[in-house]
Amino acid sequence: MRIDAFQWLDMAIFQATATAPVNIACIKYWGKRDTKLILPTNSSLSVTLDQDHLRSTTTSRADPSFEKDRLWLNGKEDEIKPGGRLATCIAEMKQLRTKLEQSSPNKPKISQYHVHIASFNNFPTAAGLASSASGFAALVASLAALYELPASPSELSVIARQGSGSACRSLFGGYVAWEAGTKPDGSDSFAVQVAPRDHWPDLHALICVVNDAKKGTSSTTGMQRTVETSPLLQHRIKHVVPQRMKDIIAAINARDFDTFAEITMADSNQFHAVALDTAPPIFYMNDVSRAIISIIVEYNRASVAVGGRIKAAYTYDAGPNAVIYAPKENLREIINLIVSYFPQTQSFSDPFSIFDKGEAPGSLALPEGFNPAVAIRHEVGAVKGLIHTCVGDGPRVLGAEDSLLTSDGLPKPLA
Amino acid sequence: MRIDAFQWLDMAIFQATATAPVNIACIKYWGKRDTKLILPTNSSLSVTLDQDHLRSTTTSRADPSFEKDRLWLNGKEDEIKPGGRLATCIAEMKQLRTKLEQSSPNKPKISQYHVHIASFNNFPTAAGLASSASGFAALVASLAALYELPASPSELSVIARQGSGSACRSLFGGYVAWEAGTKPDGSDSFAVQVAPRDHWPDLHALICVVNDAKKGTSSTTGMQRTVETSPLLQHRIKHVVPQRMKDIIAAINARDFDTFAEITMADSNQFHAVALDTAPPIFYMNDVSRAIISIIVEYNRASVAVGGRIKAAYTYDAGPNAVIYAPKENLREIINLIVSYFPQTQSFSDPFSIFDKGEAPGSLALPEGFNPAVAIRHEVGAVKGLIHTCVGDGPRVLGAEDSLLTSDGLPKPLA
Repeated sequence: MRIDAFQWLDMAIFQATATAPVNIACIKYWGKRDTKLILPTNSSLSVTLDQDHLRSTTTSRADPSFEKDRLWLNGKEDEIKPGGRLATCIAEMKQLRTKLEQSSPNKPKISQYHVHIASFNNFPTAAGLASSASGFAALVASLAALYELPASPSELSVIARQGSGSACRSLFGGYVAWEAGTKPDGSDSFAVQVAPRDHWPDLHALICVVNDAKKGTSSTTGMQRTVETSPLLQHRIKHVVPQRMKDIIAAINARDFDTFAEITMADSNQFHAVALDTAPPIFYMNDVSRAIISIIVEYNRASVAVGGRIKAAYTYDAGPNAVIYAPKENLREIINLIVSYFPQTQSFSDPFSIFDKGEAPGSLALPEGFNPAVAIRHEVGAVKGLIHTCVGDGPRVLGAEDSLLTSDGLPKPLA
Repeated sequence: MRIDAFQWLDMAIFQATATAPVNIACIKYWGKRDTKLILPTNSSLSVTLDQDHLRSTTTSRADPSFEKDRLWLNGKEDEIKPGGRLATCIAEMKQLRTKLEQSSPNKPKISQYHVHIASFNNFPTAAGLASSASGFAALVASLAALYELPASPSELSVIARQGSGSACRSLFGGYVAWEAGTKPDGSDSFAVQVAPRDHWPDLHALICVVNDAKKGTSSTTGMQRTVETSPLLQHRIKHVVPQRMKDIIAAINARDFDTFAEITMADSNQFHAVALDTAPPIFYMNDVSRAIISIIVEYNRASVAVGGRIKAAYTYDAGPNAVIYAPKENLREIINLIVSYFPQTQSFSDPFSIFDKGEAPGSLALPEGFNPAVAIRHEVGAVKGLIHTCVGDGPRVLGAEDSLLTSDGLPKPLA
């Protein structure tokens, strides 16, 4: 926690900048029991991805000269609608500051000031990655730093949750559960860390950004249509997810990738199954998503057939993009496989230097026993980008040099 | 029932020819409780389609000169494997004949003779339409005629069921239920007619034959993988299908297309949902199938939005082909819609003359209020054929002139 207070025309600057990570669920959140408070119908579990690759950065400043709360996302002002999700999160954070000021009278009364907030995602919105999770987590983290709140990440997650459900899981690094809770006020519906990144740092992820002709149903409206119309959802909530939560937490504790992978793939499938069981049905995966599943299924089959282990797990959120989780040692094979079937326009950036100089992903031999007929070689652009990342840490507080606001309290021009 | 017995070198010819229809389920059969006897995990319900358009024709002949049982499908001999499904059906039919001969000693002892069987489907196997249902129904119907069996269609359906589960439903015309039954020997797992064609003759069907790059999982192996691995299937079997069976039978009795359509679409979705909930997941629908669903959903939405009724219901079996059920009056709009989005290479055959001379399906105006952005116009060949048919009658016995066997007992050359 850090406050950039310096003398500038004899006035203190109350400002903080934080970054927050993206998280990708292994046990999926789909359905709310309370749409206003964003209380889920079932618990969920995710892996936090490394902020070195994907992150939201947010600067919050409180100042007596500000005439209203304002927020800019990627340089463009977003309206803070009264009673909306942004307004709710900002109000809740101000309320925590007010309490702090009441119990510590020497603290400046900045809870009374309006705030200016600038937020930036370092990944394109067009990539189809859920930016609301990292975005709301960064918002809450930056306000917590600005307000010097003594709140724990779980306490803050209750507030982030009201911005975007899955945002609560981005308040922690590593392996994170969102406990559904049962209380009507949502006070027991928060995120907890199952294990820190360092417990199992070997888990890597390959995000395959899939081209999508058609904009799918938004997850907010889609999940409630499932709650209202799917006969299978209630069975999932009551009888499937609770056991899967226990099993995947045990697998994470034991660093048992095989079990982790089986549950992750089964739960991705089941989330898309209940979406399909909705009236009218909801489809997020397309033929390219299906082809990636076929490739991963065959990759695992070929390994298990010769006594080997499960090598990779796919998972899909509310869109066609695949996220492939795997132990680091398998990423070389996986990236080569994916590029073989989905030729890329750009050369692979290889942030972990897993390919030798001169080696081209997509041109190496396929794994032993892998049946190449499992999918066709697609045209360039079917998978429009690949991002290699790994399990990461939780929100970070940055210094004044990383502020996204100018001295006037307006967003800096985008780099 | 008819026997073609005439004098030829002083010998009687024991032969019969029958046709049987295709049926397309509204409540889907997916999963066996006994794989040998083909006993299903849940009841199902189908509409029998008109044999004037789609049929299997089978000639069976018994002759003392035949050295073994033989069968030709579309002119090509199929091996009758001992203990296999064909052998089981033929043996069961011979056993019924044997009982008849025992109780009526004046009947010729043709149960002792080997049989030659020739069968022909008037629709291409490549169309991806399940030919096993009509094929086994025609086999059983032709043998029942040959053997002059007094068996009811329900009794015969028990035997057809052992050839291919859904074949039991093709023993009836109109609206047909397959009662799952509970007995281990399968004697209470048979088809019954819910309503004859004439009760509700207005129900038409448009089959959209969808191009498929990839051969899907066979339904025989696929459904057992679902039984073994899908956590959602048991809920479907126990808690969803029984009520849907009651509701759709009531809808058929009341000729209530709206309810019929809602249940049909929901059950198609749920069948594909449990296929997706299987490990590894099974996909039968592709992006073209999804686009057809979007078009039908929007077609219904636009109608209901102005106080109209549900106009069409899609359903998908274990493949990408759509079957669209609708009252006859809507077929003109539906065919125009589908051809608008899926241009055809061949002109539409229009067996019911619903288009005026000079009118081209695909060039008429879209329905009032229909949002054309719901799907893209696909390239020619994405839907490679359209078949317009309607609810039809049950198996028919034909005359000697329609025999598929030559006087030598070999299949006639294909026309």
